[in-house]
Amino acid sequence: MSTDLMPNRYRPGETVLPARESQLIARRDGVLGASYRLQYRRPVHFVRGEGMWLYDPDGRAYLDFYNNVPSLGHCHPEVTAAMAEQASQISANTRYLEPRLVDYAERLVETFPNEIDRVVFTCTGSESNDLALRVARYASGNEGVIVSSYAYHGTSAAVAEVSPNLGDAVKLSPNVRMIALPGPEGVPDDQAADFFEAQIRSAIQDLNRRGIGVAALLIDSIFSSDGVWVDPPGFIAGGVAAVREGGGLFIADEVQPGFGRTGDHMWGFERHGVVPDLVTLGKPMGNGYPIGAVVGRQGPMELFGAIARYSNTFAGNTVGIATADAVLTILKRDRILQNALATGQYLRAGLEQMAKQHDGIRAIRNAGLFLGVDMAREGTPAAGRRGMALDVVNAMRDDGVLISTTGANEDTLKVRPPLVCQTEHADLFLASLERALVKVAG
Amino acid sequence: MSTDLMPNRYRPGETVLPARESQLIARRDGVLGASYRLQYRRPVHFVRGEGMWLYDPDGRAYLDFYNNVPSLGHCHPEVTAAMAEQASQISANTRYLEPRLVDYAERLVETFPNEIDRVVFTCTGSESNDLALRVARYASGNEGVIVSSYAYHGTSAAVAEVSPNLGDAVKLSPNVRMIALPGPEGVPDDQAADFFEAQIRSAIQDLNRRGIGVAALLIDSIFSSDGVWVDPPGFIAGGVAAVREGGGLFIADEVQPGFGRTGDHMWGFERHGVVPDLVTLGKPMGNGYPIGAVVGRQGPMELFGAIARYSNTFAGNTVGIATADAVLTILKRDRILQNALATGQYLRAGLEQMAKQHDGIRAIRNAGLFLGVDMAREGTPAAGRRGMALDVVNAMRDDGVLISTTGANEDTLKVRPPLVCQTEHADLFLASLERALVKVAG
Repeated sequence: MSTDLMPNRYRPGETVLPARESQLIARRDGVLGASYRLQYRRPVHFVRGEGMWLYDPDGRAYLDFYNNVPSLGHCHPEVTAAMAEQASQISANTRYLEPRLVDYAERLVETFPNEIDRVVFTCTGSESNDLALRVARYASGNEGVIVSSYAYHGTSAAVAEVSPNLGDAVKLSPNVRMIALPGPEGVPDDQAADFFEAQIRSAIQDLNRRGIGVAALLIDSIFSSDGVWVDPPGFIAGGVAAVREGGGLFIADEVQPGFGRTGDHMWGFERHGVVPDLVTLGKPMGNGYPIGAVVGRQGPMELFGAIARYSNTFAGNTVGIATADAVLTILKRDRILQNALATGQYLRAGLEQMAKQHDGIRAIRNAGLFLGVDMAREGTPAAGRRGMALDVVNAMRDDGVLISTTGANEDTLKVRPPLVCQTEHADLFLASLERALVKVAG
Repeated sequence: MSTDLMPNRYRPGETVLPARESQLIARRDGVLGASYRLQYRRPVHFVRGEGMWLYDPDGRAYLDFYNNVPSLGHCHPEVTAAMAEQASQISANTRYLEPRLVDYAERLVETFPNEIDRVVFTCTGSESNDLALRVARYASGNEGVIVSSYAYHGTSAAVAEVSPNLGDAVKLSPNVRMIALPGPEGVPDDQAADFFEAQIRSAIQDLNRRGIGVAALLIDSIFSSDGVWVDPPGFIAGGVAAVREGGGLFIADEVQPGFGRTGDHMWGFERHGVVPDLVTLGKPMGNGYPIGAVVGRQGPMELFGAIARYSNTFAGNTVGIATADAVLTILKRDRILQNALATGQYLRAGLEQMAKQHDGIRAIRNAGLFLGVDMAREGTPAAGRRGMALDVVNAMRDDGVLISTTGANEDTLKVRPPLVCQTEHADLFLASLERALVKVAG
């Protein structure tokens, strides 16, 4: 496992920058401090965004294959207009009657299987996961949480302590259990489901033996921070059933896969043919406006709501709702899922073609427009694989294309463009990746 | 203590509503569920907001003396324009170089005493308090938290468990200690500081005896959910010193008093002549846009930032920063603090005059434009006091003026208008309160 928590970042002294930038960074460090890290060896600065493109102060265009928050494209004019229009009329909170709040909640719930019919709004994905854990603990009466071995679920105290991805310095809860995924362990597809389920059963047994019990299996169904492990479809189903048998809830963290990124479905869990008890939403829900939600089954949601007040000042305010409503309308009207599926397939085909010519690509995985591309040939040591991935990412950044890395060893390219990505953008990305591979690996 | 967690609310069956509203409420209950409660016996519905006023679908105007989020007034055109303009240009995250982020962080920090020079952005006050507790626990190496006996600090798991205000159904942490405030206990002003400090020393001793230690004293310096207890200035200083002696940090929760509400200062803690280690911000920071922050001393902030990654997707995005920047500019340019102080004094004088004529007013407390008005004459049983407060609040609602209740017994009127409140608005409020007192108490 990487000891550097954010390998793809600027390190003072490593890169010589123009005075304008180094002076700004010095001021930044002086007031924002160590929590704030800049992406890329040579940080980027953008003054304008439009669709798939970001522009720096000199007018240079960068193709965005990384940002999943503006999934309808940067500064989508209809989304911005919906937000501005509502903000100029009224921003009511949820303690006032507000038809738009109810309308949107109903529209949102309709995109889920019938069993899932309740929603509580939040402002961020972290708040969604934090709330979902609270609900699961009330509903189950248990405290234990099962996550994947390199999971990241957010920043609050309760979710940080079930996020092994944050590294050794952030203490894990005594109530969390990590399970290895079949993919990174090299388990063949036909044994993946059994491998996954067996570990979950073993984790539950251990939690029970200690009187902790299982409150929830909390997973991102495309396992993005573990390195994008999406196949085989359905491999999580037996594990989900085991958690329910043990009295726990299944929480699908859809902050990354949700709202159509996987292309074949609106929600990532659908790929696996399972229906969660609770689903957590965030990032692309408002195309950048801070809004999230917990969507779930009536039983646990009502049980929690009846006994524990949950009042989130900003969450569900009319401006956020109007913005998210515009996003959902455009997502359907512009057939964004179909585009994510088609462009994802096109990208994958291009990558597979490239892998035949460059042995720097070890494996390719994707669901729609979330792709993981493992760097370096089989047998390369971990540090070498990570070094190559970082070199490729930064060569592409210098070439005007934005991606980053993921996975336990951070040697997987994380390719996650806005969902409006077209084949013309895919071609530009593929050409840039090819140049980077030639430059880095020869 | 009240057994009803939100006494001022709509209860199905208690009020007969028009079909349009009761149908909407039925749909609302069906999708949003039990977590969502409507304020007032007869819920309100607004379609337009402007300055101090909210308008219902029939065009009826309501004077807002309750909402502290839009502290510059509802739908402030300059704030909305700043948000819309930035959203149409770029919304960059904090991993990209962004001069506006640094500029605003510097401007914000300048409003604090010199010792406080670092900022980390969040999206909500709950996220701010959750992060501040994480920082305090890392910096102190301890786990214990001291709060006031009816404190509310937010919705995340970690802050809910140190928020006794949430009631018996929400379990408190074994690491939290509650202290009674001198005011509600009837302690004279000249003994208030000693009373406060003695309890804190006793709490620390108990935490140490159990090996928990004290990580933080977490208080809202106007103790809004305890019923607005602001005097005597300085009474918390000895308790703060005791916490530091014990190895803990002082966290000032400025979500309610901050950004000038107390009128005499930008930050509520300044009233007490103390300098916190960490300060948490939220509600009015973006006049409604979801943005908050933890501002603090370099020592604990850098210690946390260096070891624990804190990456909050939406927090510090350029749109939120541009919005908060416009708020700070207007706050200074329009002399909002001076207005809060002057109008607060005017309101208090009017209330004191009224108290001479109506024995329904037991006590009046305020700091700037946060006022607490205790209902019912001395000796009235708790249920009677709460009932009167609720009757007054709902009579005023029917009269077109919005306030609510606070305090352990919810028998204190919570009067908290936007900070642009003028004497003409104060006059309207006072006249409505007088009508309500006559109606309710005769």
